Amino acid sequence: MDDLAAILFDTFGTVVDWRTSLIADFTAWGEACNLRTADGGSPDWAGLVDAWRGAYVPAMDQVRRAVVPWTVLDDLHRTSLDTLLPRFGLAAINDASRTWLVLGWHRLRPWPDAMPGLTRLRRRFAIAPLSNGNVALLMDMARAAAIPWDMIFGADLFGHYKPDPETYLGACRLLGLPPRRVMMAAAHNGDLAAARALGLRTAFFPRRTEYGAGQARDLGPEGPWDVVAADIADLATRLGA
Amino acid sequence: MDDLAAILFDTFGTVVDWRTSLIADFTAWGEACNLRTADGGSPDWAGLVDAWRGAYVPAMDQVRRAVVPWTVLDDLHRTSLDTLLPRFGLAAINDASRTWLVLGWHRLRPWPDAMPGLTRLRRRFAIAPLSNGNVALLMDMARAAAIPWDMIFGADLFGHYKPDPETYLGACRLLGLPPRRVMMAAAHNGDLAAARALGLRTAFFPRRTEYGAGQARDLGPEGPWDVVAADIADLATRLGA
Repeated sequence: MDDLAAILFDTFGTVVDWRTSLIADFTAWGEACNLRTADGGSPDWAGLVDAWRGAYVPAMDQVRRAVVPWTVLDDLHRTSLDTLLPRFGLAAINDASRTWLVLGWHRLRPWPDAMPGLTRLRRRFAIAPLSNGNVALLMDMARAAAIPWDMIFGADLFGHYKPDPETYLGACRLLGLPPRRVMMAAAHNGDLAAARALGLRTAFFPRRTEYGAGQARDLGPEGPWDVVAADIADLATRLGA
Repeated sequence: MDDLAAILFDTFGTVVDWRTSLIADFTAWGEACNLRTADGGSPDWAGLVDAWRGAYVPAMDQVRRAVVPWTVLDDLHRTSLDTLLPRFGLAAINDASRTWLVLGWHRLRPWPDAMPGLTRLRRRFAIAPLSNGNVALLMDMARAAAIPWDMIFGADLFGHYKPDPETYLGACRLLGLPPRRVMMAAAHNGDLAAARALGLRTAFFPRRTEYGAGQARDLGPEGPWDVVAADIADLATRLGA
């Protein structure tokens, strides 16, 4: 891997801790607004966040199978939120608040190792997210958390969601690099399998609490990845950065 | 302009001093290699750089008029360089050296006010190049000069060169912003005229030596631009950043 030039990072779960971030964000907001459910209770934010994330893959698959035309993640998030709110006794939440909740995905916080690891990696490699998030979401996230990306590859650049090949190959094309000089880094084996099949290098590190304490998936490497690390800081060490 | 959220910067001439950068870069390289022209003289780097830049607009226009298919700027640069080298007695330059010369456009240096001005503007606004350069070129340039872009809008994201509307409107779409919340900043009146016609805000500042001492164009504002500044640092002051 002497000629490795760029590293692409999956974002949700890999770089940022979406679940902890959203629950903390919404809990603080609900308390500040004294928000109550229809039956007068406290909102079940953890339940809503888990159900919202659960709607993510099916919503993208509708786009990937061309059941619906290209739709950015912000809009998929809004549609699934609108569907879920009544189930959680929150049907009364108004439009501005729904927009604010959707923008919660723009305010996600990095895992503790992400910033030091990315800062080190950037000295030696070009670094960029390759995410199913849209450019505006990823840009807001990077500005809020001061993530030093060299470029942002949002799915809306390609009009395709991962694991469609257009995303991985599109990023390589824009980088002006052959796939073997580009590494996909992710906490998700499926993402890496798709990248590897197209000739990209791969790096895995687990995020064992991404989905909460009872997580049952992606607890370890499940393929012949080029690098298996403990986290992004360890990836930097293993790549000599 | 209270709701201005993002500023797009033209790059060649506006943010970076391509002429001075390339002449210095090639002169140092030619001396280090003891490079001679076919008749044994010193290469006329200023002449080559001016002729090379002179080939820029006609080459892009071939793409814009669909005379040739979409071609990134790096490849247009290579084709025009190959055409020009014999005229300057440099036909003997080999392929690796030609590649190195083309990559000179990736190593351009910012004008002195650019870095302090952009650093200030970024605190308040999202900032990004909107350039006819390709993403790889702009990313290399930003890495070499540590330009703190939030995003990079290269022409290859759109498959169109400015002043085609797809570039300005494509950047607004990816930013998730209506054109009135986005400002185009450039040292070129033509770029601003195209942006303004599409509803973007506009900022002009002159670069009176971009084309050398005898420059006859873009010496002052030639349209009703929203802001006219002395340079990027002054633009930051005028926008309260």
